[in-house]
Formats: sequence, C-alpha cells, structure tokens
Amino acid sequence: MKRVLLVVAYDGTDLCGWQIQNNGRTVEGELNKALSDFLGEDIHVIGASRTDSGVHGMGNIAVFDTESQIPGDKFLFILNQRLPEDISIREAKEVQPDFHPRHVRSRKTYEYRILNANSPVPVRRKYTWHIPKKLDVQKMQEASRYLIGEHDFASFCAAGSQAQTTIREIYDCDVIPDGEEIVIRVTGAGFLYNMVRIIAGTLSEIGKGFYPPEKMKEIIEARERKAAGATAPPQGLTLMKIELEEVQSF
Amino acid sequence: MKRVLLVVAYDGTDLCGWQIQNNGRTVEGELNKALSDFLGEDIHVIGASRTDSGVHGMGNIAVFDTESQIPGDKFLFILNQRLPEDISIREAKEVQPDFHPRHVRSRKTYEYRILNANSPVPVRRKYTWHIPKKLDVQKMQEASRYLIGEHDFASFCAAGSQAQTTIREIYDCDVIPDGEEIVIRVTGAGFLYNMVRIIAGTLSEIGKGFYPPEKMKEIIEARERKAAGATAPPQGLTLMKIELEEVQSF
Repeated sequence: MKRVLLVVAYDGTDLCGWQIQNNGRTVEGELNKALSDFLGEDIHVIGASRTDSGVHGMGNIAVFDTESQIPGDKFLFILNQRLPEDISIREAKEVQPDFHPRHVRSRKTYEYRILNANSPVPVRRKYTWHIPKKLDVQKMQEASRYLIGEHDFASFCAAGSQAQTTIREIYDCDVIPDGEEIVIRVTGAGFLYNMVRIIAGTLSEIGKGFYPPEKMKEIIEARERKAAGATAPPQGLTLMKIELEEVQSF
Repeated sequence: MKRVLLVVAYDGTDLCGWQIQNNGRTVEGELNKALSDFLGEDIHVIGASRTDSGVHGMGNIAVFDTESQIPGDKFLFILNQRLPEDISIREAKEVQPDFHPRHVRSRKTYEYRILNANSPVPVRRKYTWHIPKKLDVQKMQEASRYLIGEHDFASFCAAGSQAQTTIREIYDCDVIPDGEEIVIRVTGAGFLYNMVRIIAGTLSEIGKGFYPPEKMKEIIEARERKAAGATAPPQGLTLMKIELEEVQSF
C-alpha cells in the first residue's frame, strides 16, 4: 500500500465546497469518484482544508491510499484526464504512509480579493467581491497588523463552529493594492470557520471609514462574533497554498 | 438629440460575440435591449470593435443616440442595474453628435493570455489558453518585434474577411511573463479578422521552438494565411482598451 499526496486547484463557482455531500458536486466527492473509477478500489481522500461552497483553491492538499503499483507522480496526468474542468491536480507524489495533512504543522495562505471600482468587471465577478465605495488601503493595512500573532479569534468565528479552542496564530496579514483590486493576504497555522471572510468583511468596513484602524484591537479583545464586521461573500476567497512540515517524498 | 459614449466590459464566455444575431446573446443585442426598454425608443448602438464569440472585453466602446433629457453619465448606473452580469458599463458620457467610433483614429490594445503550466488552473480556464509545453518567452519577444510597424498582414487574416486592404499598422507588440501566464500585448490602429489570435498561435509555435524568431519576417512576407500558425482559441483574448482621438465630451 502507498499513500499519494495531491495538490488540488479548483474553481469553486459551481462546486458545493470541498467536503463530500449527498447532493451537489464537491472537490472531495469528485476526487473519490475519479480515483475509485480508475483504480477499481474504494478510495476516500483526506483533505487538508475543507473550503466552503463558492471558495476557490489554488493549492489545497489531499492524500489517498492505494494498492496500485502506479508511481505516485503519474496521478497528475491520470486525474487531469478524468476530473471535471473546474478541478485540477497541480502536483502528485508518494509520501510516507503515516503522513496525515491535518496532523502536521502547516502554514496556510488565503487571499481575499475585493474589486474596488465604481462599476463591475464581468471577467472578475466570480473571483472578487465588488465594493464600489473607495476604500482606504492604508487604513486597512494598519488594521491588518493587529491580527498578526497568537490571539483568541472568537470575534472572527462563525456561529456553529465546533472548534475546541478559538485561539489561532496568524503569521502574516497584509493588504495589497493590485490595479482595481485589493488583496487581503493572510497566512496562519489554521483558521476558524469563516475566519478569513469575517476578517475581509471587517477590514472593508475599516477601509470605508466606519471605524479607525485601532478598532481592530478592540474587536479582537471583545471575543464575540457580533463585535466584528459582516462575513464577506465566498467568491472573493482563494486558498492559495499550504506549506506542510515533515513531508517526506518517496 | 444627444449621442452618448459607453465604455463596455464583458465576459465573453457565454456570449456570441459583439455583433447582434438572430439566435444567441450578444453584447450589441443586450445593450440595444436594455436601452430600448428603459428609454422607450428604438435604440441601436454602434460599436468600435466587433469582437468574436468567446472573446472578452475590458474597454470596448459603443455610442447611441437618444431624445432623452437624462445626462449621459447617468447611463452608467442605469445600464448596470439592467444589464446581465456578464456585461458592464465602465464609463458613460455625452459626446459630439457626429462622433463615430469607427471613423476616428484609434489605438486598440488587445491582450492574449497563455497559461504555460504542466497542469490546468481551473479559475483561469475561461481566460487563458493552456499550453503545457514550456515556451521560450525570449524567442517569442524577439519574434513579436517583427510585427511592429506598417505591414501587409495577409498571413494573419482569416479566410472570409471582407477587409478592403490587409495593410495594418501595429504600434506595439510585446510578450510579458506574468507568473504562470504569458501575456501577448498588441496595440494597433485596427486589426484584421482573427489577426491577434493568429499572431498568438504563431508566437506559441515559435515559443515551442518549431521555428526560430526570424521566421516571423518570412511569415509576414509570404502574405498568405497558410504561412502563419494556427488560430489560438478565443477565450485567451481580451480587448483591453480603445484610445480614441478627437473625442470631445460635453
């Protein structure tokens, strides 16, 4: 038996998120189906990050076990021939059999994109949140710095989360102008349910001038969801990459 | 009566191009419909550039005449409330009544995007041409310089074109790496049918090493379509902007 690691990209627009469901296409479901059909085994992938419906992926990670003799790296071509066009394998390799993508230390990087323009840009409508009002990027940058470090992020956790603790560490957070778009880039070890979307919603309110940047400190300290801003819509969010420690390729 | 100029953006994926058709949604058709419905007049827009089915627009231009007293700039909001989400107005203003977007000197800039990566990127599949084989950008850049200037571009004109002359002037042409993508940016006064897509197809063959960069000179001199490379697919192409001379705003 061998364990194969996949780096997975997807356009979340027409997917019901990562996690398998009874109704609706999901990344996990489509990977299980393509692998099981091809290998003639009952394959269940294990994902590193269960992104929500409508959220995009550039570098999520999944592993699966197979009895097959096919070298791990061949699964890139095999799966890209069989997956629907909104899911793609960017990398495939064999890893140690006990490697689990949620039981190792990792750095996850998300980007949230805001289209900050008077009018919509059709080619970007599925990949950005359109905010017509001019945002103050510098104020957003200032506010984003309060998020860096280990904090109790209870204010940035959607109701219904089953997380045992709301303490998380953010390694880096920045707000970067990119033409008509503003990119909120956040790197951390792990995130609470809807955490990046609530951060984006809160930063957008600071960018609009509703609150000064220092308000972010108070919002964190309040430790309750209602202290923070609205949850930004899913289509602006992309899981860019997951850097894993302790992966040994074979 | 007044004439209003619109800067129009669109996602070409689900549109049958600019020009009105009996079957299928087009940019011209959707603009006529939204304006006629709103104004209660029979409106026919005149477009600057009739892009093909599947090609995207960031800054195409259209004008229309109306008896209405509504200030020209108000049509941005009015139309964006009424157009389908794959078409957007980026700018609207009143212009002189005899202004015609195809009868003035203009500089049109197109970008053709190639995703040059081993595997597909789902979020970019509708906006790039995926070429897995590694392209030599420097060779493509060298080849692109032969295109600059006034030439007979018959080799880059699709069969069925009704152009009176195949002589065109290209002001600028460059090949720019952008992460996993390669951007072919071309600026000219006007283009023949499928010209930018045939340029992109030819440059990709040079990038693959099928021909040396100097081959571009021979291809131009041959003045026949079969001398050039294949026509690149439409989804990689975007009309970025049209700069018009002699526009006087009111």
